[in-house]
Amino acid sequence: MANARKADYLKETVQHIDIAKHNVVPLVDAMGRMAFQARNLSRAAKIYDQMLADKDCAVILCLAGSLFSAGLKRIVYDLLQNNMIDVIVSTGANIVDQDFFEALGFKHYIGTTAVDDRQLRAARVDRIYDTFIDEDELGVCDKTISDIASTLPSRPHSSREFLAEMGKYLVKRAKAKDSVILAAHEKGVPIFVPAFSDCSAGFGILHHQWHNPDSHLSIDSAKDFVELTKIKLACKDTGLLMIGGGVPKNFAQDIVVAAEMIDREPVMHKYAVQVTVADERDGALSGSTLKEACSWGKVDVTYEQMVFSEATLALPLIAGYAYHKGSWKARPARRLSSVLDEEVLAGARR
Amino acid sequence: MANARKADYLKETVQHIDIAKHNVVPLVDAMGRMAFQARNLSRAAKIYDQMLADKDCAVILCLAGSLFSAGLKRIVYDLLQNNMIDVIVSTGANIVDQDFFEALGFKHYIGTTAVDDRQLRAARVDRIYDTFIDEDELGVCDKTISDIASTLPSRPHSSREFLAEMGKYLVKRAKAKDSVILAAHEKGVPIFVPAFSDCSAGFGILHHQWHNPDSHLSIDSAKDFVELTKIKLACKDTGLLMIGGGVPKNFAQDIVVAAEMIDREPVMHKYAVQVTVADERDGALSGSTLKEACSWGKVDVTYEQMVFSEATLALPLIAGYAYHKGSWKARPARRLSSVLDEEVLAGARR
Amino acid sequence: MANARKADYLKETVQHIDIAKHNVVPLVDAMGRMAFQARNLSRAAKIYDQMLADKDCAVILCLAGSLFSAGLKRIVYDLLQNNMIDVIVSTGANIVDQDFFEALGFKHYIGTTAVDDRQLRAARVDRIYDTFIDEDELGVCDKTISDIASTLPSRPHSSREFLAEMGKYLVKRAKAKDSVILAAHEKGVPIFVPAFSDCSAGFGILHHQWHNPDSHLSIDSAKDFVELTKIKLACKDTGLLMIGGGVPKNFAQDIVVAAEMIDREPVMHKYAVQVTVADERDGALSGSTLKEACSWGKVDVTYEQMVFSEATLALPLIAGYAYHKGSWKARPARRLSSVLDEEVLAGARR
Amino acid sequence: MANARKADYLKETVQHIDIAKHNVVPLVDAMGRMAFQARNLSRAAKIYDQMLADKDCAVILCLAGSLFSAGLKRIVYDLLQNNMIDVIVSTGANIVDQDFFEALGFKHYIGTTAVDDRQLRAARVDRIYDTFIDEDELGVCDKTISDIASTLPSRPHSSREFLAEMGKYLVKRAKAKDSVILAAHEKGVPIFVPAFSDCSAGFGILHHQWHNPDSHLSIDSAKDFVELTKIKLACKDTGLLMIGGGVPKNFAQDIVVAAEMIDREPVMHKYAVQVTVADERDGALSGSTLKEACSWGKVDVTYEQMVFSEATLALPLIAGYAYHKGSWKARPARRLSSVLDEEVLAGARR
Repeated sequence: MANARKADYLKETVQHIDIAKHNVVPLVDAMGRMAFQARNLSRAAKIYDQMLADKDCAVILCLAGSLFSAGLKRIVYDLLQNNMIDVIVSTGANIVDQDFFEALGFKHYIGTTAVDDRQLRAARVDRIYDTFIDEDELGVCDKTISDIASTLPSRPHSSREFLAEMGKYLVKRAKAKDSVILAAHEKGVPIFVPAFSDCSAGFGILHHQWHNPDSHLSIDSAKDFVELTKIKLACKDTGLLMIGGGVPKNFAQDIVVAAEMIDREPVMHKYAVQVTVADERDGALSGSTLKEACSWGKVDVTYEQMVFSEATLALPLIAGYAYHKGSWKARPARRLSSVLDEEVLAGARR
Repeated sequence: MANARKADYLKETVQHIDIAKHNVVPLVDAMGRMAFQARNLSRAAKIYDQMLADKDCAVILCLAGSLFSAGLKRIVYDLLQNNMIDVIVSTGANIVDQDFFEALGFKHYIGTTAVDDRQLRAARVDRIYDTFIDEDELGVCDKTISDIASTLPSRPHSSREFLAEMGKYLVKRAKAKDSVILAAHEKGVPIFVPAFSDCSAGFGILHHQWHNPDSHLSIDSAKDFVELTKIKLACKDTGLLMIGGGVPKNFAQDIVVAAEMIDREPVMHKYAVQVTVADERDGALSGSTLKEACSWGKVDVTYEQMVFSEATLALPLIAGYAYHKGSWKARPARRLSSVLDEEVLAGARR
Repeated sequence: MANARKADYLKETVQHIDIAKHNVVPLVDAMGRMAFQARNLSRAAKIYDQMLADKDCAVILCLAGSLFSAGLKRIVYDLLQNNMIDVIVSTGANIVDQDFFEALGFKHYIGTTAVDDRQLRAARVDRIYDTFIDEDELGVCDKTISDIASTLPSRPHSSREFLAEMGKYLVKRAKAKDSVILAAHEKGVPIFVPAFSDCSAGFGILHHQWHNPDSHLSIDSAKDFVELTKIKLACKDTGLLMIGGGVPKNFAQDIVVAAEMIDREPVMHKYAVQVTVADERDGALSGSTLKEACSWGKVDVTYEQMVFSEATLALPLIAGYAYHKGSWKARPARRLSSVLDEEVLAGARR
Repeated sequence: MANARKADYLKETVQHIDIAKHNVVPLVDAMGRMAFQARNLSRAAKIYDQMLADKDCAVILCLAGSLFSAGLKRIVYDLLQNNMIDVIVSTGANIVDQDFFEALGFKHYIGTTAVDDRQLRAARVDRIYDTFIDEDELGVCDKTISDIASTLPSRPHSSREFLAEMGKYLVKRAKAKDSVILAAHEKGVPIFVPAFSDCSAGFGILHHQWHNPDSHLSIDSAKDFVELTKIKLACKDTGLLMIGGGVPKNFAQDIVVAAEMIDREPVMHKYAVQVTVADERDGALSGSTLKEACSWGKVDVTYEQMVFSEATLALPLIAGYAYHKGSWKARPARRLSSVLDEEVLAGARR
C-alpha cells in the first residue's frame, strides 16, 4: 500500500536543461539594453564570458540551494566538459544528494507545493518545494557513501579527496552519464563541499564512523580551506561565478584573505558574479553585496555584478550566453586537481 | 553648466526588447520540465497561450511597476498589434510618464544605482533604480496633458476616455511609432488607469483644473470601474495576465464581484497569471496568492500561476512564448472600446 | 448549511493593539544601538518623534496594505486623537473595507493560511493571508456607500469630500467607537484615497452610478491631487510617515513637484520614513529608496529612513515610541480640512 | 595616516540588547491577537515558552547570519545563563569572528551602508551592512585560534571539541564577561559549528596546518554530526529555535534522520520555530517551510511556526517573552556536553 502510494507521487521526472540547444546570445544582448535585473543579468553573463577569455583567470563556480534537483545539473556538466570552470565549491545537497544520487540511477520527480506533507511523510516521499524524491533511494545513496568510506584509509580527508574517490567509484558504476562528480574527476576539476557532513555524505560517513568507532576516516574541513588556498596561490587571477550564497560564497571569497595570511600580497578575485534571491537587509552574507566584499579585500569592484533572480531562470541564460559566445574554445583544461594530488602524493611520502 | 551636467548622465538610451526576434519556445518548454520558478514561468506562458486559443476568452493585461522605462514597452505594443490583449489596466507611470512621454519623442537612459541622488537632483535628472530621465522633458509631458485637458468638455471622464483622447492626439503628433496608447487607440483596445492622478497625468490635469477653477474636466475613477465591469459583462470568459500587483491587479479582479453585484451569476476570471517579486507575508494584495483570490470569488484556481520573478526577466519569455506559439493568429481583434464608445454616444445624447 | 459553515470559520476576532499600554521607548532606544533593521527602526521612530517636535511640520500618514484588518487600526485612531498626524493618504482597503466596515459593527476574524480557498468560497468567507471576513457583511458595507452616494449632489467629489460625508454619516450611526474615518472627521484631518474606486467604495459608487445613469456623483481623483497640493502649500514643512508603498507613497511624494508646478519654489518633504517589505530590485516605486526620491526633488535626504519590516511588527514600535516620548503633547490640532472646506464653500459660491 | 582614517570609522560601538530590561510579554500577547507576522511571532514565542515548560524537551538553538555583531549576543548569553537552551548549532561568524572576537576585548562599531567600500578597504575596516570592524583585530582573533590549535593533540576534533578548548582558553583570558563560548563552557552546553573552517577559525587552523604540515590537528565535521546525533538519542524530545537558515537549520534537522539510521524509531523534533527573511520561492533550504521538513520526517507540524522577519526585530521579542514568562525557572541545566565528554574519555581509553 505504501509503495502504491509512493508511485502515485513519483511519475514524471525533472529533465535537465541543455544549454547547447538554446542560443540565447541575442536575447541576453537585448536584455543588456533594458534595465533592472535583465540588464544586471546581461552584464553578469558578459563578465562570465570575460573570465573565460582572460587567459590568466581560473573560474570558481559556487553552488548553493537545490539547483541540481531543479534541472540545472546538466549545465554544470557541460561547463565542465567545455573547460568553462576550473573549481567547484558547493553545498552537499547539489553534489551528493542530487548529482551522486542521479549517477546511481535515481531521479527527481515533478511534484507540487499544494500537498499535505504528512501524506508525503507516510508515503516516504521527500519534498523540495515542487519536487518529489523517493526517500528510500536517498537511503541507498547514504549507504553507498558509507561503503566508499569503508574502503578508504583511516585518516583525515578533505571533502575534495573524498569526492575524488566518489568520482573513481563512478567510473565503472555510474548509471547516468551526465554526472558532475564523474566529469570533474575526468577533467581534473576539484570539487569542494566545505560543510560536507551537511548532506547525504554526512549520513554515510556517520554510518561509517558509528560502526567503526576505533578506526575510521574523518572529514577535515580545514584541509579543504588549505587546499583551496593553494589553488588560489597557484592561479594568477580568479573569478567567481556564484549561484546562491551560503557557505560556498563565503568560503571561496575567504581564500583571498587566507592567501594574504600565508605568504604574499593579496590578489582579490578579479571577477565576481552572484545570482541570488537574497538581499542585504538582514546583514547575512548570502545577500551581502559584492561591494561589501571589497571592504574585506576579497572582491575587486571593477567587474562584479549581482543578479537578483531565482537560479532556474538566470543560470540557463548566463551559462548559455557564455557557451554560445564561445570564448571558452581557446581555453585549456587547467586540471587544478593535479596541484593538490601532487601535494597528496608528497604527503603520502612523508 | 547644469545642462552640461545633465548631458553627462543622459547618454545611452534604453532599447525595448523585440520578442519577434527571439523564439523562446524551446527554452520555455525546457523550463517546464525543470522546477521552481522556471517551471512556474513555463506554466504561466502556457496558460497565456491557452487564453489566446480560447475563442471565448478576452485577455486583460495588468501592468504595475516601471515596466516601460525598463525596455518592456515594445512587448505590449506587439501584443496589441497582434490581437493578443483586449484590455489594459495599468498604473499611470507606464502609460503616461513612459509611453506617452516616449511618443512625444523623449527617451529613457541607461543609468546606474551607484550615484549621489543629490547630484542628480542638481542636474535635473530623475532616477528609477538604474534608469535616468530628463526632468524637464517630463515637464513637457505634464504640460501636454494639460493642453489636451483644456480641449475637452468640462465633465467627468473615465481615465479610459481621457486616454482615448490622448490616442487621438498622437495620431498626427506621435514622434515614435511604437506607442502603446496610439496602438490601443487604433486597435480599439481600452486602457484603464484607475489611479490616473498618480502620474504625469495628475500633474497635467492639476494644472488644467488650477488654471480653470470654474470650469474644468474631472477624472471619474468610479466611471472606470463601471466601464470595466461592462466589458466583463460583455465577455463570455476572461483571463488576466498580470505584471506586478498594486491597483491594476485588485481593480481587474474586483470586476467579477462588481458584475455579480449588478445583475448576474458571477463568472470568475477563468485564467490568471501573475509575475511579481512580492510575496504573501505582509498580507498585502500585491503578493497575495491567486488561490487567496479564489476565496473572494474572483479567480478560478484551475488555470492560475504565480511566477516569482522580476518582470524584465519573465515577460520577454512569457510573451515571447505566446507570440511564437502563434495561437493568436486565429484570433480576431475584439475592439472592446466599441462597447463603451456606444455608451458614450448614448450618454452624449441624453 | 452554508451559514453553519461560515460560523465555523468566523470565531475569534482580531484585536487592535493599544500603544498606550506598551511603553516601548527603552526597547526602541536599545534597538538604536544595535544594527540592521532594529537600528533602522529606531532611527525611523526618532525621526517621527522629531517631526512631532517640529512646530512647522505637518505630518502626512501614508497607508498601503491590509493594515487595519491586521490589528493596526487603533494605532491610527490614537495618532488622530493625540494630534500626531495631520493628513492621511491611504488605499481604500484600509479606510473603507476595513475601518468603515468595522464602524458599521462588523469584525475581522483570526484565520489561517492552511485552508482550501474553494471551501472558503463556498462558505462565503473571504481571506486576507491569515484573516477571515464575512463576505455578506462586506456587501452591507458596499451598499451603505451606495446609499450615502445617493444623498449627495451629482457633481465631482474628491475622495476626501466623500470620506468627510462618510464621517458625518458615522457621527450618529457608528457602532464602534474607534473609527479612523469618524475621528478624522472630528479632528479635522483630511483623508485622501487617490484610487477610491479600488475598494468597497468602488462597489458602492458603481451601484449608485449604475442605478442612476443620468444623474450621479463622480469621484474626481484629480481633485484629490489639487487638494493635497493646496495642503502642501499651506504648510511650512511636511513629513511623511509611510507604511507600505503603492499609490499613497507616490501620491504624497508627488505633491512637492505639483506645488513647484503651481507657483513657488519647491519645498521637499523635510522628513520621510517608510516601513516596507519591498526592495528596490524591481525598480517599482513601492520599494524604491528615499534617496531615489531625492533625485526627483521630492524628499530631502537628511532625515529619511527605510525600515525593511512587515508593518504589524514595526508600526507598534514606531508609533508607540513617539506616543510615549510625548513630543506631541505640545502640538496643536492643525485641522487642515478647514483649508479645503473653505475652498469648497468658495467653490459653491461660484 | 591609515590608522587615523581607521579611527574615523570606528567611533561608536554596537551595544547588545538586554532582554531582562524589557518585559515584552504584554506586547507579544497583544501581537497574538493581530495578524500576519505579529501573530506568527507571538505564536513562535509561545511555542518557545512551551518548549521550556516541557520537562522532556531539550532546546537546540540554531544561529545563521551576522547576529552577534548586530547586538544579539547578550540574548544568547542570557539564554545560556538561565538554562533556556541546551545545544547551540551556529555558523562560525557568530561564534568565532564575533563572540570569541569580543571575548578577546574587541568591539563592533556602528557604521553605515552609505560608504565607499574601496575607502574602507584602504582604511582596513571591514563592513557588514551597517557595521564596521577593525580588520587588524580580526587578524588577532585568527592568530589566537592558531595558537590554541597548536596546543592540542594532532588528531581529528569535532568543532564542538575545539570550541570547548576555546572555552577553557577564555576562563582566564576573557576580557569581556558576556561570552557565549565561555558561558556555554561553564554551563556544559555544547556548541557545534558544522562549517567550522568557514570563519575566523578557518584562518587560524589553516595557519596552524600550513606551518605544521607533518603533524597537526584536523576538524572532523562528520564527528560533529555523530556527536549531535548522540545528543538527539540522549534526549526524549527536542525543540528547535532557529534564527536564520543555512547549514545550522539543515544540520539540526538532519539528526532526526541520522538517529533513525542508527538504531531506533525516529523521533521528529517536537517543536520548531524559525525566524528568517528568506522565503520558499527558490527551493533552497533556508526559506523552506517547516511543513516541507515534515515530508522528510524531521519536524512535527503540530508546534511549528515560521516568522518572516529580520532577526534584530524578532529575537528580542521572542526571547524576551520566554524570559519574562519564566517557565525556564523550573528547568534544570541539562549539561549535554557531559554526554559527549564521557564519550571522549571512553575514546581516549581505547
